[in-house]
Amino acid sequence: MENNHNFEIVPGGVTTAAGFLAGAACAAIKKVNKPDVALIYSSVPAAAAGVFTLNRVKAAPVVVSMKRLERGSARAVVVNSGNANACNGTQGMKDALAMTTEAAAALDIPADGVLVASTGVIGQKMPMGKVLKGIREAVGQVSPYGGNHVAQAIMTTDTFSKEAAVRLMLGGKTVTIGGTAKGSGMIHPNMATMLCFITTDAAISAPCLKKALQHAVTLSFNMITVDGDSSTNDMALIMANGLAGNKAIEEENPDYIYFRDALTAVCTSLAQAIARDGEGATKMIEVKVLGAATDRDARLAARTVAGSSLVKAAVFGNDANWGRVICAAGYSGACFDPDKVDIFLGQVQVARDGGSLEFSEEQALEELKKDAVTITLDLKSGGCDATAWGCDLSYDYVKINADYRT
Amino acid sequence: MENNHNFEIVPGGVTTAAGFLAGAACAAIKKVNKPDVALIYSSVPAAAAGVFTLNRVKAAPVVVSMKRLERGSARAVVVNSGNANACNGTQGMKDALAMTTEAAAALDIPADGVLVASTGVIGQKMPMGKVLKGIREAVGQVSPYGGNHVAQAIMTTDTFSKEAAVRLMLGGKTVTIGGTAKGSGMIHPNMATMLCFITTDAAISAPCLKKALQHAVTLSFNMITVDGDSSTNDMALIMANGLAGNKAIEEENPDYIYFRDALTAVCTSLAQAIARDGEGATKMIEVKVLGAATDRDARLAARTVAGSSLVKAAVFGNDANWGRVICAAGYSGACFDPDKVDIFLGQVQVARDGGSLEFSEEQALEELKKDAVTITLDLKSGGCDATAWGCDLSYDYVKINADYRT
Repeated sequence: MENNHNFEIVPGGVTTAAGFLAGAACAAIKKVNKPDVALIYSSVPAAAAGVFTLNRVKAAPVVVSMKRLERGSARAVVVNSGNANACNGTQGMKDALAMTTEAAAALDIPADGVLVASTGVIGQKMPMGKVLKGIREAVGQVSPYGGNHVAQAIMTTDTFSKEAAVRLMLGGKTVTIGGTAKGSGMIHPNMATMLCFITTDAAISAPCLKKALQHAVTLSFNMITVDGDSSTNDMALIMANGLAGNKAIEEENPDYIYFRDALTAVCTSLAQAIARDGEGATKMIEVKVLGAATDRDARLAARTVAGSSLVKAAVFGNDANWGRVICAAGYSGACFDPDKVDIFLGQVQVARDGGSLEFSEEQALEELKKDAVTITLDLKSGGCDATAWGCDLSYDYVKINADYRT
Repeated sequence: MENNHNFEIVPGGVTTAAGFLAGAACAAIKKVNKPDVALIYSSVPAAAAGVFTLNRVKAAPVVVSMKRLERGSARAVVVNSGNANACNGTQGMKDALAMTTEAAAALDIPADGVLVASTGVIGQKMPMGKVLKGIREAVGQVSPYGGNHVAQAIMTTDTFSKEAAVRLMLGGKTVTIGGTAKGSGMIHPNMATMLCFITTDAAISAPCLKKALQHAVTLSFNMITVDGDSSTNDMALIMANGLAGNKAIEEENPDYIYFRDALTAVCTSLAQAIARDGEGATKMIEVKVLGAATDRDARLAARTVAGSSLVKAAVFGNDANWGRVICAAGYSGACFDPDKVDIFLGQVQVARDGGSLEFSEEQALEELKKDAVTITLDLKSGGCDATAWGCDLSYDYVKINADYRT
């Protein structure tokens, strides 16, 4: 699929970029017989970077991976689902380290080149016999076709696996970026229970890689919200192995911008998939804020509207209740003049200058019935825009709110 | 009922204190035939104070009442439910002022002595014919027994009316404080869609009254949370007419402290009633944070745990999932050492030093099945405590989360 950007969206995930292998195994950590251990491996050393949860309570694998990324390189990521290895004290740290040691031994690489991630229940001891056996099995399964196996092995309450990939040309060389993510409950700005693993064959320095990842996460995973809870285990990791042979990106030159924007597209696609898969969701909500005075105002307003239980309930109930939209923007912390705000549901303007407006309830209903409902607020206070994604809030809690206006 | 405080809890509401009259009327602003206009009136001039929503989008009655309270006195409050008179532009301001003018004319007092409040749908024009007729009717109904009529007339999605009153002795004189509140959806710290009206016959200066009200609101209404949305219309108003004949409180002396603590008890009782009436709630949740380094840390942690969708869902599902409790404290912004935290469900300790602990799932289940579930976090980091109140999150959204751990 062509677009007006400098990249092309392609099918794929973490094994689409050159030199990356992956595998998964069923280790019975989850109560159901589904893959729950996975491994991603670069056949050559790679620059690496990560973004981590801001929760004060950090799971052991978060602590281990943060520390290992200080040197800016990695060869592999080992991950399990079904147990978060959080709040497990010193034993949790030992277990996280043992996972990396086991993976490293099976791959015959140094242990400090292995990153680790976990997702699942907090405060339960890791079943290390099962985990280590699973890691050995996953290593035995690694292949260039293992990307989707990883995508499936990291799922918890997710109802579908999530992958995305793009290609771009940098100085005549084809560069590929591919990734996978998990998350459906506990999704919120600032890296809330979400794992994301991205691989690329681009040649790029670790500092530039980190900067590009932070940029991409700010505009994607930090702009989705499902239920407001930020987890102990979130992380987004990226490895860049340089096999594309492009001139290494070592400063913020045009190649850096192209790479950064392509990476942002991968992260945005994954973030939208997470929002769409919000627990209990029947539709995705996209909130666009235009004309904010600052980027911060735009993001605050967009995220808060997308996260408002009452807005989510109104969307579920197909209720064009724009009052809840402006109310949420009002308590978001964003600075704006309420008397200037225009609000649109899809193409239908439902409020003008912060007040009511005659509009076609039928047309508004058509917009609300879509799989992806777009709410736009034009603050008319400046030149900054932002987009956030969430989902509706369904069923009984909602019944009370959804029909409140009618 | 006696207690170890300096006050006595008594039945009553806004007409329990001497010299206060109230009345209500059915004005057909609501679609159902229920009271929706009310009036509270002091037979003599009264000191007055208020606390208002922090939402940037403020409804017209909020703007009018804030302005009128600058002089620190009032005679009456007129209120309607069914329409919030928010986002109605200059017409909204005219309508809010017209409500006060109508009430003042019927009561034969100056219009600037009348405060105004509204609750209901945002962005719909006020049906002023009905509203003004209702105000005249409500004035015709005023009596010393009208307190509960007001409590009923301000209800929207509330399932029961909310009143509280206390008596205390100040210098040999009996002082009464009584109030009513409404709110069930959109309840959140910082005065989110909630109206509260309090009357007292205490003699107290306007500055002391305002200070006492701010203190009481901080420990009560700002410590409840239902769904995270902060409204355009919230306010807590108090009038003090001095008819008790106590020596006027004009500084922070012991009488001030007695009065303040009694007022806090009234507000806390009303706040708990609001939490208990959270939309869709099946039980109340009380979150106590002990041993925080600062009051701010204690309040942040308590409110965030009480407001966590995942904690609320776990309580609904009778799941002793303490990991979600420590996780919510972790992202609250409170400073503490995760490795020190003890967590209790009622009397049952479920986590020690931030980690798991053998506990009786049966005893924990007993605690979770209570009408009011108490969660205690001892941060062991200092001497500050706080308590927050919320409710569980019921039904289908919850089904996914409630059984996640098992």
